[in-house]
Amino acid sequence: MKKVSSKMSAKRFRHVLGVEDTAIKLAQRYMENEEKASIAALVHDYAKERDDKEMIELIRSNGLDEDMITFGNNIWHGIAGAELIKQELGIHDEEILNAVRRHTTGDVEMTMLDKIIYVADYIEPNRTQPKVDEARRLAFENINGAVEFETKQTLLYLIEKQALVYPKTIDTYNKWVAK
Amino acid sequence: MKKVSSKMSAKRFRHVLGVEDTAIKLAQRYMENEEKASIAALVHDYAKERDDKEMIELIRSNGLDEDMITFGNNIWHGIAGAELIKQELGIHDEEILNAVRRHTTGDVEMTMLDKIIYVADYIEPNRTQPKVDEARRLAFENINGAVEFETKQTLLYLIEKQALVYPKTIDTYNKWVAK
Repeated sequence: MKKVSSKMSAKRFRHVLGVEDTAIKLAQRYMENEEKASIAALVHDYAKERDDKEMIELIRSNGLDEDMITFGNNIWHGIAGAELIKQELGIHDEEILNAVRRHTTGDVEMTMLDKIIYVADYIEPNRTQPKVDEARRLAFENINGAVEFETKQTLLYLIEKQALVYPKTIDTYNKWVAK
Repeated sequence: MKKVSSKMSAKRFRHVLGVEDTAIKLAQRYMENEEKASIAALVHDYAKERDDKEMIELIRSNGLDEDMITFGNNIWHGIAGAELIKQELGIHDEEILNAVRRHTTGDVEMTMLDKIIYVADYIEPNRTQPKVDEARRLAFENINGAVEFETKQTLLYLIEKQALVYPKTIDTYNKWVAK
C-alpha cells in the first residue's frame, strides 16, 4: 500500500481503496479469491500517473502493441502498467496481472477476477457518473450483465465526447454487448 | 438502371434513386465528377439483397477479409458487392468501386467521391432518422463535417441498439470524429 500510494495523488489513492473494497465484496459474492481481488485492485492504477515518455519507452522495450501509443495513458496504463508491477512490486501472478491489463478496455475472454476488477473500477463508492447506481445493483446481481452495462455506457460516453476509442474496446463490446 | 432495379425491391430502388439524386447535387457542390457520382450511387446497394450463402462464397473466393462474415450483409454488401459489380455490370473504375466498398463503414482515407456516396446514402430524401436535417444542412456546407456527424450518429445508434460494430467503423471514427 505504501509503495502504491507513493506513486499517485491522494485522490487517486482514495479511488484505489474504493476499488479494493468493492472488489473484495464482489469476490465474496462470486466466490473468487479475495486476496487476489484485493491485490489486483490495489495495483490496477499503479502506472496511471507515470510520465508518457517513460511509458512509451516501456511499451517499446517490452514489445507491447505500439498502436497503443497514439491512444495515450488512459489506454496503456493497465497493459504497460503490468510490466512495472512485475518489475517494481515483484508481483508475477498472471491472473492478477491480466486483471490489471484488462481493467480499462475489457477483453473478449475475461476471467471472474478480470470482471471483478473491471466492474469494481466502474462502481466503487467515489464514482458519480450517470447510471452508476444501476451498475452497482447489476454488479451484485449478475456480473456479466454489469460487464455489458459498463462497456456500453463507457462507449456511449467516449463517442458522445468524441474521444479516441481503442479497437480492443470494440472487440469487448462485440463479445459482451452486441446481440 | 434496369439491371440494378431487377436485383432489389421497389423500396430499395427508390432509396438508390434518392442517393443518386443527392450524390449528383453533392458532386456539383464540391466539383466532383457527376457521372462517377451517379454510377457509384446507382450501384452502391447492388448486392444488398443477395443470399448470404452466395455472398460468403464470394468473400472466400475473392480472398476478402473473412472476419466480415460474422458481421452480416449490412457490412459486406459494399465490400463484397464491388466484386459483383465488376463481374455482372462490367464496371472496373476503381474510384467508383472504392466508393461502393467504403459506403457503409467509411474509411481512414476517403476521396471526395467516397465522401459523397457515404453522405448521400445517409441524407437522401427518403431517410427519416433523427437529426437527418442537420446532416443534410452540413453536407452542403462542409462535407468533412457531414462525414464526422454521420459516423458519430451511426455509432451511437448501433451501440444504443446493441448491434455488432465492424472494427473498420472505429478506425473511421478515430480518424474523422475523435479529437
